[in-house]
Amino acid sequence: VNLILIERAEVGDGGVVLLSDARADHLLNVLKIAVGDRVRLGVLDGPCGSGTATAVTAGTVMLRCAFAPDAPVRPRVDLILALPRPKVMRRLWAPIAALGVGRIMVTNASRVERNYFDTHVLTPACYRPLLIEGLQQARDTRLPDVSVHRQFKPFIEDDLDRLTGSGLRLAGDPAATGRAADAVGKRRDERVVLAVGPEGGWNDFERDLLSAHRFERISLGPRTLRTDTATIALLALVHHALA
Amino acid sequence: VNLILIERAEVGDGGVVLLSDARADHLLNVLKIAVGDRVRLGVLDGPCGSGTATAVTAGTVMLRCAFAPDAPVRPRVDLILALPRPKVMRRLWAPIAALGVGRIMVTNASRVERNYFDTHVLTPACYRPLLIEGLQQARDTRLPDVSVHRQFKPFIEDDLDRLTGSGLRLAGDPAATGRAADAVGKRRDERVVLAVGPEGGWNDFERDLLSAHRFERISLGPRTLRTDTATIALLALVHHALA
Repeated sequence: VNLILIERAEVGDGGVVLLSDARADHLLNVLKIAVGDRVRLGVLDGPCGSGTATAVTAGTVMLRCAFAPDAPVRPRVDLILALPRPKVMRRLWAPIAALGVGRIMVTNASRVERNYFDTHVLTPACYRPLLIEGLQQARDTRLPDVSVHRQFKPFIEDDLDRLTGSGLRLAGDPAATGRAADAVGKRRDERVVLAVGPEGGWNDFERDLLSAHRFERISLGPRTLRTDTATIALLALVHHALA
Repeated sequence: VNLILIERAEVGDGGVVLLSDARADHLLNVLKIAVGDRVRLGVLDGPCGSGTATAVTAGTVMLRCAFAPDAPVRPRVDLILALPRPKVMRRLWAPIAALGVGRIMVTNASRVERNYFDTHVLTPACYRPLLIEGLQQARDTRLPDVSVHRQFKPFIEDDLDRLTGSGLRLAGDPAATGRAADAVGKRRDERVVLAVGPEGGWNDFERDLLSAHRFERISLGPRTLRTDTATIALLALVHHALA
């Protein structure tokens, strides 16, 4: 944890915050906080700041906090992810949030098993704490928006423009030859939507639909990677190309 | 599994291979192989090829195999990894092999806990099957060499040249500003050694020692990533820059 995140409603008058849950445990047992010590804090979807411990008990920490005037900028990459198997999806929430995305759109595809959509990994109760874990790692406060799209075609045709607007659209595809750096090229000021396909790849229909909606296909090279590795690798490449 | 790997000693006269372990299970139960079907095969540290099923029983598959004349080229990136906690190290072997490295040098650093070195994740019995899993995912046959270095200074001063020779040396460092793409730049024909530091970063002594031994520091941007995410991201960036 490189940044403790708190909810806006937890900030009381004069910037006083009282913690008594896992965050207090972390401050007490990992950081060994004492009265007068300062720690980094952030308000979820709000600004970063710092808090000074004003009282410490066995299970609670009271902090007086001050925050920057503005929240950090929302990450400029949005992610479309063909739902991987639940165990992999569960493991991906935190690193995706750490790498930085504005929105995560989980979608179906021909090579996704339908019953994956009925698992608890797509419930906010599961993914919200994992996204917050990723933000705390990366010192960000911007919780990615999450939406789930059980039908690929209406998602791409009817919802995508509204959810992501204009900007560059890239689709990871092992069969492609385009490079992420070239695709971003001179468009480094735009937002990017990155689509990562299922373990077995997009089928022809999906590939054509993506092309028809302005997605450029980019490759990670000749080596086939598991979805979780490929997602992290592609997000890193796109962020690097935008930087 | 995108490629079934076999040991050289398993290839009998006339290219006959008899499988009766987890690989046979995979062929029988996942790929539903029948007599006459062909599958991709590779010889560990040898060539890729294909096998045609000549006999199939409940638990065994016999294949007649033919192989390419040459083994695939060894990946051009070597990795120095400050040992992360065992759970993370365990999870990293397969994706590292899938992304492609010639050699993995696990090292100590000031912010690595000493007792991590006594865990079974550094034994070949643990890592070899995980490396093979990564190779089978990526359709490679080249098993990375693995070496473990409990002392950072003698490793860098005395062993590194012998293990990796000349070539470009890069060290991931959140405090740096250099970009992977720029560091590789016009040196895309050389081998690269990539060093990934511990969770808390290199200390000043380690940073200076790396600089004194020609390492250029590169950054993944302002977001602090967990070691496993950073390792995958940096390997992806370096391979992308070399491609």
